[in-house]
Amino acid sequence: MKLPDIQSSPPEEQIPIDKVGIKNLRYPIRVLDRAKGLQATVGEFNLYVDLPSHFKGTHMSRFIEVLNEFKDEIHVRNIEEILRKLKKRLNAKSAHLEVYFPYFLEKKSPVTEISSLMEYQAFMLASLTARKIDLVLGVKVPVMTLCPCSKSVSEYGAHNQRGIITVAVRSKKFIWLEELIEMAESSASSPVYPLLKRPDEKYVTERAYENPKFVEDVVRGLAFKLLENKEIFWFTVEAENMESIHGHNAYACIRYPFENYSSESSISK
Amino acid sequence: MKLPDIQSSPPEEQIPIDKVGIKNLRYPIRVLDRAKGLQATVGEFNLYVDLPSHFKGTHMSRFIEVLNEFKDEIHVRNIEEILRKLKKRLNAKSAHLEVYFPYFLEKKSPVTEISSLMEYQAFMLASLTARKIDLVLGVKVPVMTLCPCSKSVSEYGAHNQRGIITVAVRSKKFIWLEELIEMAESSASSPVYPLLKRPDEKYVTERAYENPKFVEDVVRGLAFKLLENKEIFWFTVEAENMESIHGHNAYACIRYPFENYSSESSISK
Amino acid sequence: MKLPDIQSSPPEEQIPIDKVGIKNLRYPIRVLDRAKGLQATVGEFNLYVDLPSHFKGTHMSRFIEVLNEFKDEIHVRNIEEILRKLKKRLNAKSAHLEVYFPYFLEKKSPVTEISSLMEYQAFMLASLTARKIDLVLGVKVPVMTLCPCSKSVSEYGAHNQRGIITVAVRSKKFIWLEELIEMAESSASSPVYPLLKRPDEKYVTERAYENPKFVEDVVRGLAFKLLENKEIFWFTVEAENMESIHGHNAYACIRYPFENYSSESSISK
Amino acid sequence: MKLPDIQSSPPEEQIPIDKVGIKNLRYPIRVLDRAKGLQATVGEFNLYVDLPSHFKGTHMSRFIEVLNEFKDEIHVRNIEEILRKLKKRLNAKSAHLEVYFPYFLEKKSPVTEISSLMEYQAFMLASLTARKIDLVLGVKVPVMTLCPCSKSVSEYGAHNQRGIITVAVRSKKFIWLEELIEMAESSASSPVYPLLKRPDEKYVTERAYENPKFVEDVVRGLAFKLLENKEIFWFTVEAENMESIHGHNAYACIRYPFENYSSESSISK
Repeated sequence: MKLPDIQSSPPEEQIPIDKVGIKNLRYPIRVLDRAKGLQATVGEFNLYVDLPSHFKGTHMSRFIEVLNEFKDEIHVRNIEEILRKLKKRLNAKSAHLEVYFPYFLEKKSPVTEISSLMEYQAFMLASLTARKIDLVLGVKVPVMTLCPCSKSVSEYGAHNQRGIITVAVRSKKFIWLEELIEMAESSASSPVYPLLKRPDEKYVTERAYENPKFVEDVVRGLAFKLLENKEIFWFTVEAENMESIHGHNAYACIRYPFENYSSESSISK
Repeated sequence: MKLPDIQSSPPEEQIPIDKVGIKNLRYPIRVLDRAKGLQATVGEFNLYVDLPSHFKGTHMSRFIEVLNEFKDEIHVRNIEEILRKLKKRLNAKSAHLEVYFPYFLEKKSPVTEISSLMEYQAFMLASLTARKIDLVLGVKVPVMTLCPCSKSVSEYGAHNQRGIITVAVRSKKFIWLEELIEMAESSASSPVYPLLKRPDEKYVTERAYENPKFVEDVVRGLAFKLLENKEIFWFTVEAENMESIHGHNAYACIRYPFENYSSESSISK
Repeated sequence: MKLPDIQSSPPEEQIPIDKVGIKNLRYPIRVLDRAKGLQATVGEFNLYVDLPSHFKGTHMSRFIEVLNEFKDEIHVRNIEEILRKLKKRLNAKSAHLEVYFPYFLEKKSPVTEISSLMEYQAFMLASLTARKIDLVLGVKVPVMTLCPCSKSVSEYGAHNQRGIITVAVRSKKFIWLEELIEMAESSASSPVYPLLKRPDEKYVTERAYENPKFVEDVVRGLAFKLLENKEIFWFTVEAENMESIHGHNAYACIRYPFENYSSESSISK
Repeated sequence: MKLPDIQSSPPEEQIPIDKVGIKNLRYPIRVLDRAKGLQATVGEFNLYVDLPSHFKGTHMSRFIEVLNEFKDEIHVRNIEEILRKLKKRLNAKSAHLEVYFPYFLEKKSPVTEISSLMEYQAFMLASLTARKIDLVLGVKVPVMTLCPCSKSVSEYGAHNQRGIITVAVRSKKFIWLEELIEMAESSASSPVYPLLKRPDEKYVTERAYENPKFVEDVVRGLAFKLLENKEIFWFTVEAENMESIHGHNAYACIRYPFENYSSESSISK
């Protein structure tokens, strides 16, 4: 039986479509790990292509078929090949892959040096047009921030809280998630840890008190480190504090190259 | 034209259904406000009835019709009437209304006494069976907690963070959300505020440092206050800290009457 | 007592900050309503300014103070004034206000013509630089989509599902949310409704079957209507289907002016 | 240096605490897989113990230490051992482990028989008191439901949508997630699939049209199958439809043993 291919017929309004595809697909993957080679995790994927004005629809099942060809071997080294196959199978001029995944690192407590696993939320946003791949690598890093104003006005104590740093970069050379995480953690009052014994808790508490940071200080310190790395030619850094003295958050953001702010990224919220 | 009423036909498996209805319906409402009489807000509703074993389906549109009859007049004083109408219109033996809504209070900063609006997430869970209404009233209250262990082991400073207290009660008499909020806020190291000028920030920082609380202390302190109110015959209190030194949270919970813990409430997560 | 103003001291790294301020603040507001004049709802606000390289920090409490001056009178007509006050009070060159809120419309069922309230998620993203205001107005519109491919290959039936259309525009003249909602709903297989009696359900079912739409058709149809409105000089339209035959979603997006796709808006996910 | 152990001192209010511990900790795990033996995934953990009235606090770091002892070997077969260690290390009378994780199964498209990975959200809720372990095993299963009313009143077509079935059981014998998934999928109008070619889409569309199901039918059909399994002595089944004709959801729930509904599980929402 021959079934009609509605997708290949012409559409009513002949307008080209920027991105069409599948969203929120979870899939087990392996990603590059500086210490262990590869790390098993679970990715949440968005896969898109463009669609020229004369085709009514894309063929959604082919996105999954391409992903299936790489089963168990989806990591940063073959993202470009995945995008090439997507472009080819979908007859497209551009292909896009976005993947968000939890990433785990062994982290030692600072004094007792007990190892445990710390989780970060990482992401890769990759696009392939004509023949050039564009890759944005990023990660969300929980940190501790202690308020310089609170410390300076108070006889004792200072409010502090968990903050989340989001850093995303474009780089001329391969860059490890571990490098971004280290730059982010060292820009805050203190890293956070999965496991702290009492001597560690003393160390972290005192270190944060000696090292107060506003969200403004955090994004500036991190931007400064990123600007020193000559391979990185684009970045955004954001810091968001779950303020311990408020019900709302404090937020700061720097983009490089320095440019006018646009509201558009807030649409997807 | 007479359209068939499939819902009223018998089902394949004649099993009674505990709850059937509509979920995640948003609707503008007015709720009782101790200071202002009524407060306009937006509720997210779940509305259910039971369904006897001999009917295939309930009539979903009637839930909305009942809600529409109370338009602009949905508040705690007429929940019982809404439930009575639901029971009657749906020919049910029991009816359930759950509503979650942001609730705002004027709150003065502690030193400069500037008023602003503070938001709380409140909820009412109401059930009407034979002729008795059962009402659970609750609210989520953001607070500041400062760690007693961190304070005691450190030369200076102490880690602190935003925590969320969830308190839910059954009471013989009407109780204001404001009363629950006051009991919750006074059980933490400090309340949080929408607006703090420097003298306020100094006050809150120092007060929290003088008043360290674990999540365990928070739930015990709040349970103690609730036990003193003889009108309250059932409660649960939970405290969850977004720990500033960890990426995960600290949590404690007390239920009264004291009873064995059951996993079942974790299903809906 | 004079407390130090740490924020006004110079920072370690003298890098300008694009946006700094407060995030996720909920506040009751009134917004313009074409039928009723004003509508009470609850907004979730982000408020930012830029920060020049020579100041260490912004003054977070002033954001709330400015908002408080407009209490009960926050709507689209005075966003520009709010931004002007933010710029002035914070000594900034730019100010940004983002607000997300549920918006309710009376909607009649298509045959029985019973009115009830339908909820949409609306947003306004406003920026004020030198002397020009930039306003993006948008809304998320739930709709019904019926698959043209499924209909054409099947003897009977066709899979359909709830989809969400997100439309955001910049316009030379004032535009009502109601206009965007109407354009979005008429681009799908059918609008969705809060209340449908059996004759309405028959009508909606049959109308959707007669009017199959891919996500690609939805964004093209809506883009076509937006292009016809000569006041609208910028837009993005997105359609996302919670596919009834898959566990993942189908997605399409058109931006105007037609431009190269950038990954950057996916960072905030 | 000897640091004080504040946790072991007596609290102000001597009230026993039901559950205290850590929440929302992500950790890579391996779970039992009927086809492959073990499956690597990422778990989100809550770990709690009780706390007697005479201790001020629990020792949070020990939860992580116990988890670390089982690193790479966390699966259902050793949950009891984890709980025993938690009880012992924390000197508690009860210990609780809750873990939520994505679970993947190979699934063939129904006609073309192409394999791909389908994701389910699974969970295990385990408690150890005196010497008895209590285990609730559950999973969320996306399915397709087609409305019997819409089909019966319409000349052609019928509205259908993605629904989510949540099933949770207590069983005398070990039960596979795969068994729960099969029972859930066969209770809906059709399973959903990650990949469907045109002949598959025709099959699924027509099969769902021939097999209409309300949420009420879904929970009854699944309850019937669970009641037939004599090993299962407790269950809850829920079905929630993202109705394609509404902006809100339809919901039904059955609990066994049949008992009075309580509002309490709605507190954690």
